[in-house]
Amino acid sequence: MPTLSVFMDVPLAQKLEGSLLKTYKQDNCPNKIFLAFRVCMTSEGHPWVSSVVPKIRLQIAYDPSLNYEYVPVKGMKSFTEASLKLLFGKHSQAIVENRVGGVHTVGDNGAFQLGAQFLKIWCKDSQIVYIISSQKEPYGLVFQDMGFTVCEYSFWDSKQLCVDSNVLLDVVEQAPHGCIFVIGNIGDCNLTQSQWARLMANMKSKQIFPFFDIPNQGLSTGDLEEDTGFLEYFVSQGFEFFCSQSLSKTFGIYDEGVGILVVVALNNQLLLCVLSQLMKLTQALWLNPPTMGARIITSVLCNPALQEEWKQSLKGLVENIMLIKEKVKEKLRLLGTPGSWDHITDQNGPHSYLGLNCGIPGQEKAYLPPQEWSDQLHLYQCLQHRLYHSEHQ
Amino acid sequence: MPTLSVFMDVPLAQKLEGSLLKTYKQDNCPNKIFLAFRVCMTSEGHPWVSSVVPKIRLQIAYDPSLNYEYVPVKGMKSFTEASLKLLFGKHSQAIVENRVGGVHTVGDNGAFQLGAQFLKIWCKDSQIVYIISSQKEPYGLVFQDMGFTVCEYSFWDSKQLCVDSNVLLDVVEQAPHGCIFVIGNIGDCNLTQSQWARLMANMKSKQIFPFFDIPNQGLSTGDLEEDTGFLEYFVSQGFEFFCSQSLSKTFGIYDEGVGILVVVALNNQLLLCVLSQLMKLTQALWLNPPTMGARIITSVLCNPALQEEWKQSLKGLVENIMLIKEKVKEKLRLLGTPGSWDHITDQNGPHSYLGLNCGIPGQEKAYLPPQEWSDQLHLYQCLQHRLYHSEHQ
Repeated sequence: MPTLSVFMDVPLAQKLEGSLLKTYKQDNCPNKIFLAFRVCMTSEGHPWVSSVVPKIRLQIAYDPSLNYEYVPVKGMKSFTEASLKLLFGKHSQAIVENRVGGVHTVGDNGAFQLGAQFLKIWCKDSQIVYIISSQKEPYGLVFQDMGFTVCEYSFWDSKQLCVDSNVLLDVVEQAPHGCIFVIGNIGDCNLTQSQWARLMANMKSKQIFPFFDIPNQGLSTGDLEEDTGFLEYFVSQGFEFFCSQSLSKTFGIYDEGVGILVVVALNNQLLLCVLSQLMKLTQALWLNPPTMGARIITSVLCNPALQEEWKQSLKGLVENIMLIKEKVKEKLRLLGTPGSWDHITDQNGPHSYLGLNCGIPGQEKAYLPPQEWSDQLHLYQCLQHRLYHSEHQ
Repeated sequence: MPTLSVFMDVPLAQKLEGSLLKTYKQDNCPNKIFLAFRVCMTSEGHPWVSSVVPKIRLQIAYDPSLNYEYVPVKGMKSFTEASLKLLFGKHSQAIVENRVGGVHTVGDNGAFQLGAQFLKIWCKDSQIVYIISSQKEPYGLVFQDMGFTVCEYSFWDSKQLCVDSNVLLDVVEQAPHGCIFVIGNIGDCNLTQSQWARLMANMKSKQIFPFFDIPNQGLSTGDLEEDTGFLEYFVSQGFEFFCSQSLSKTFGIYDEGVGILVVVALNNQLLLCVLSQLMKLTQALWLNPPTMGARIITSVLCNPALQEEWKQSLKGLVENIMLIKEKVKEKLRLLGTPGSWDHITDQNGPHSYLGLNCGIPGQEKAYLPPQEWSDQLHLYQCLQHRLYHSEHQ
């Protein structure tokens, strides 16, 4: 009699690809293009790497004094310290008051996994998570798998082709007491002072817990400090929060899994308690974080000359992203597509809402004269197109 | 009114140190020595690194063609393939029949975390885990935190000072149907043919699921194939199992977090289902595994000359471990301690049961004349002493 398999009831899981990629693959137009990549590419078609990184790799490989022993569960102290200074600025109130700390995680997913586990255990009243649709995959799914209720929203107005910051305010106003808000690029919402005041007052009175996501500090406005300035505002208003900080994309070390779960608490004592519980969870997850990426970043951030070179390389990347957006806009104009395409260049950062919706059957194609257009490009309306990549079509 | 903290109910978690280290710290004898380190040390007091690794680090740093893009959720294919060949041997039945696969994890803890998550979801009848006491921290805790019932056992006979392989057989005989057995160095049990037959028959009839732990292939007998030969025996007997494979310790790249969760299934179709579910879980855990360690290992394993050099370096390490055990035994003899200390050199691998139990109040000190001894050393009876380290006291 043949043995029965322990695994006989295990079904094949669905392939791990985003819903956008799935739609794209199902389309059989030969001219289709997929733009929603995770990585900025160079004009040679390679993933972008900061010029400073190859030098540091050599320096590390040549250094006989380096110790490759297991690092503590919390990660390399110098790495988290340097990264937190970059995130909040040297003179941050939270740093001065010793109430911000971080745990080195395996990438931003690791940071969300760790943060969500903590919130599941210790903030039992906060089991509803609000997240913008473009972050649903994969972060929303991390919360969902853990039993949280995940509510999606979007503040991109696809009719007016602009960010509608009132959406954020409305969602916060309607959200239940004590929920969690995953907040990505809030700087792009261009909130007015009175909108900020309204947002803060609502979040405070409802005890909403912010979980920020900073995947590419510096790539939004081109200025490192400006990109994350809003964090200090939350600190000054007495908020406690989590923040997933990842420096993989701004150094071009995508495969090193460098993430930090940042914690801001009201005082040092509370912070230490939270960090101690996070370390307990980390121990079960991966025990010791991988260090290569952390070594590279720390070497750069702790050396003023190298840091300057890194900042310059980042500026070059941001300029290139803007240049490509300009080119796309220009091509759309040359094709005679009606309407203004200024919204493409009005948006900051490596991602842009294109405002195209051709190709999906039954959907309006208002902005595209199909015959002319479909021979050139076949673009999917998606929430986040990485335009930088369109350079290589 | 000051804001109430979200974290006000979060207590300080206990410090993350093994129970042995805790006992050691509480003792105030000035001559105490802690021997249970995780890493093999060189005579200069540095963590051991295979001579081949620094070269590969340079080669990687100099290679402009390398792509540092995110790797797939499953990890680098070449890495898992090369590692599985090393684990099972090139002509393994499981490899030929295409029913063994692996998911790159963050270290061995990551492999246990991933495997335990899978078993929790898909093997609902297997919620009892048997583990030897020395593996309770940290692997047993991973299962325990997830709600499994964890039962400890030990096959070290502290009176006879030898491995009692009957303990393993008895534990299996008394274990309930369908439980999970975390199995470390079963090769060290020196089972006779009839004991093997009894073990297999019992495990088979009770549908016990083995979860092997191979943290340092090659360091036990000094022979890579001999160390893991028992795996192929389980394959040939029609077992399905998980195995945590880590190559960090045998390359000396401790801080890179290199692990693999190996899956053996009855056929390829079942294997693909299990791997697909594991990838789904991995996506939520850390999405993409870190690659530096995997790159180093793959470069060595896929190059026959480098692989040979690595094997030689490993042999040197094993010889050194044996040499230190000999020295410890010799010193104990020179001190005039009664009894035979052969059990120290009779045991394979970097860990050894010393058979000392001085220093713990109220416990027998039969093997140690206290006055003479306590001035020299103050050793704790522990399940696993890493003798290699005692060289540096």
